[in-house]
Amino acid sequence: MGMPLRVVALVGSPSRPSSTAAVVSQILNELPDSIGRTLVSLNDIPAEALLSGNLNEPTLQAAIEAVEAADGVVIGTPIYKASLSGLMKSFIDTLPQYGMADKVVWPVGTGGSLAHALALDYGVRPILQSMGARHIIQSAFFNPADLTVPEGGTLKQHLAGNPRYVEALRHFVIAVSADRPLPFLGHPQPDRAGTDPRNAA
Amino acid sequence: MGMPLRVVALVGSPSRPSSTAAVVSQILNELPDSIGRTLVSLNDIPAEALLSGNLNEPTLQAAIEAVEAADGVVIGTPIYKASLSGLMKSFIDTLPQYGMADKVVWPVGTGGSLAHALALDYGVRPILQSMGARHIIQSAFFNPADLTVPEGGTLKQHLAGNPRYVEALRHFVIAVSADRPLPFLGHPQPDRAGTDPRNAA
Amino acid sequence: MGMPLRVVALVGSPSRPSSTAAVVSQILNELPDSIGRTLVSLNDIPAEALLSGNLNEPTLQAAIEAVEAADGVVIGTPIYKASLSGLMKSFIDTLPQYGMADKVVWPVGTGGSLAHALALDYGVRPILQSMGARHIIQSAFFNPADLTVPEGGTLKQHLAGNPRYVEALRHFVIAVSADRPLPFLGHPQPDRAGTDPRNAA
Amino acid sequence: MGMPLRVVALVGSPSRPSSTAAVVSQILNELPDSIGRTLVSLNDIPAEALLSGNLNEPTLQAAIEAVEAADGVVIGTPIYKASLSGLMKSFIDTLPQYGMADKVVWPVGTGGSLAHALALDYGVRPILQSMGARHIIQSAFFNPADLTVPEGGTLKQHLAGNPRYVEALRHFVIAVSADRPLPFLGHPQPDRAGTDPRNAA
Repeated sequence: MGMPLRVVALVGSPSRPSSTAAVVSQILNELPDSIGRTLVSLNDIPAEALLSGNLNEPTLQAAIEAVEAADGVVIGTPIYKASLSGLMKSFIDTLPQYGMADKVVWPVGTGGSLAHALALDYGVRPILQSMGARHIIQSAFFNPADLTVPEGGTLKQHLAGNPRYVEALRHFVIAVSADRPLPFLGHPQPDRAGTDPRNAA
Repeated sequence: MGMPLRVVALVGSPSRPSSTAAVVSQILNELPDSIGRTLVSLNDIPAEALLSGNLNEPTLQAAIEAVEAADGVVIGTPIYKASLSGLMKSFIDTLPQYGMADKVVWPVGTGGSLAHALALDYGVRPILQSMGARHIIQSAFFNPADLTVPEGGTLKQHLAGNPRYVEALRHFVIAVSADRPLPFLGHPQPDRAGTDPRNAA
Repeated sequence: MGMPLRVVALVGSPSRPSSTAAVVSQILNELPDSIGRTLVSLNDIPAEALLSGNLNEPTLQAAIEAVEAADGVVIGTPIYKASLSGLMKSFIDTLPQYGMADKVVWPVGTGGSLAHALALDYGVRPILQSMGARHIIQSAFFNPADLTVPEGGTLKQHLAGNPRYVEALRHFVIAVSADRPLPFLGHPQPDRAGTDPRNAA
Repeated sequence: MGMPLRVVALVGSPSRPSSTAAVVSQILNELPDSIGRTLVSLNDIPAEALLSGNLNEPTLQAAIEAVEAADGVVIGTPIYKASLSGLMKSFIDTLPQYGMADKVVWPVGTGGSLAHALALDYGVRPILQSMGARHIIQSAFFNPADLTVPEGGTLKQHLAGNPRYVEALRHFVIAVSADRPLPFLGHPQPDRAGTDPRNAA
């Protein structure tokens, strides 16, 4: 019997409350009980440690370790200026170059308008791909209409009526569970110190 | 007689020394004397203010005002994970939605390998375009070979032998100077408070 | 006194009638009388010549020469599968590697939903940028609501009420006219035979 | 016992011989015997049928049906102008909007320089993603150095020494085989006639 599966969900919105955080929390709630879960609000990480890449700062260190230990990663980001948030990218920059290797990744975004729907696939997915992700499932983009809960309802009920969300959630769970036997090999195994991209430029 | 032209150069590398900073400084040195210039090292801005978008913090406020006052903007960023640095994106997120309107913009990137050459055009340019930039000139990407100065030489001499750099620099100066009569109209004029993207998501 | 300015507008929709063609035709109608204009419907080019890159076929040859002679180029394409049409890309593939050098380019797209709005900036603009375009102005994307003319009206009247269109049209005319003194140098001047990309792969 | 697995490999290079075709053929050779395989050279499809989307033309019809029947699809394209070939995009435009649903897809590209390495992830992957692909594995990009076989060797031997290729090939086979139980649901099942994108624009 192996280790239990784990999912970490990253929230890259600097604001509180945040619709990104609401969606991502709901995603975690809907995972099967057999999957362990961790929510990381990136704005809980001290800003100075995040931007300087101080990997010894405990909160940042814990967040990086949560990603390392995860089988599945939810990348929850608001779409600002047609791309991911600076907060999310700053955290991603602290991860190893192949920090998504052997993981299933789900890009989840919230934005002010349907016009930003392609930002996840064009602007965020290539970043995650460069990190060696084993399987990046269909992105889920939510605009305000997608998240406006009718009076008397809950976000859970509202999202249950969104077929793209339901489909993507199902894919994520299946991929996290079923793909597990596939190890990521071939690339040299980086140790973190040696691949800090800040050494390069 | 009008106001003198101004260029601001942003350096989005968290490391010191930084090859991005070296290239960007050299660019500023080569501008004609008639153009005023400001170098903004984004890692001089307090990290907490940057990530929380505290527009009252004096260093951040000064950087934003330098962009607002500029006719030309050099976006100098290392390429991390196939895109711009989190530091650069975090600063961009503090600018108004159309914060590049009426400006000439030059994306300048440094990366560990020629394999990242397209990151500026695919990953960074659409961000700047979404901000209403009037004219984004040809990107300039530098890998380590482009920046390794032969013994006894200077970076200035070395770059002078790089035709793509020389060409792009010339374009930038002409575009900053000549395009000036073109105001950006049509979009509602945003005031900063009203367009903080953090309100949206 | 110099040569009169010229604009060529390419229509990359394989269908007739085509909303892309309607928008692009209207754009040509609104150019000042001093600017010469040519409309090229890419589906008038024999398909075999286009896909095999037979540069001796007269219709294809004429289209390529129209681009070469132009100061401004309108790239009119439907958005299919989140990117430009195969017809448009097939024509672009017959142009020299730096076939947009010294030109002002305007990406214009039509799509079934606002959700494809970013396809022009993320999927099409980098292609044009790789061809050395001097100035690619703000893209203009139209979804069906943008093009549904109210009863009794004309497309011209309808578009006149679209500030993004009006703004981009104005930018295009100014850029075609005013930027002209800026030659594209520095890159080796390609002759067409030598740069047929088909030689490479 | 189910149907045998099937892989179709599309070659989008208009030239013969073609390095894209050589790589893709080698990929098919290395698949396990249990997997059926079909190579489709897109330049065998009559150009007129391809560009006009004449789905009754037998060669085009056969190619579309080969994709429909496939569990895995290799998208083999030369990189022209920083993106996929017009020939490949023209064929993709004839497929249904969700024509990659329930399939494992492998983007494979050949280009003149390492500088185009990101074109697959930024320029091609979002297209395939928009078609509902279940799993798009790591892209494989080959520049001329990757494909220059030492004297006395074979392409097979040469590629066997390329760890990124070996890794991606292994992933592709595992994903085609193991992911199969995952049906693509949720999106309305399109019939081809109703989703011809040419209806839209």
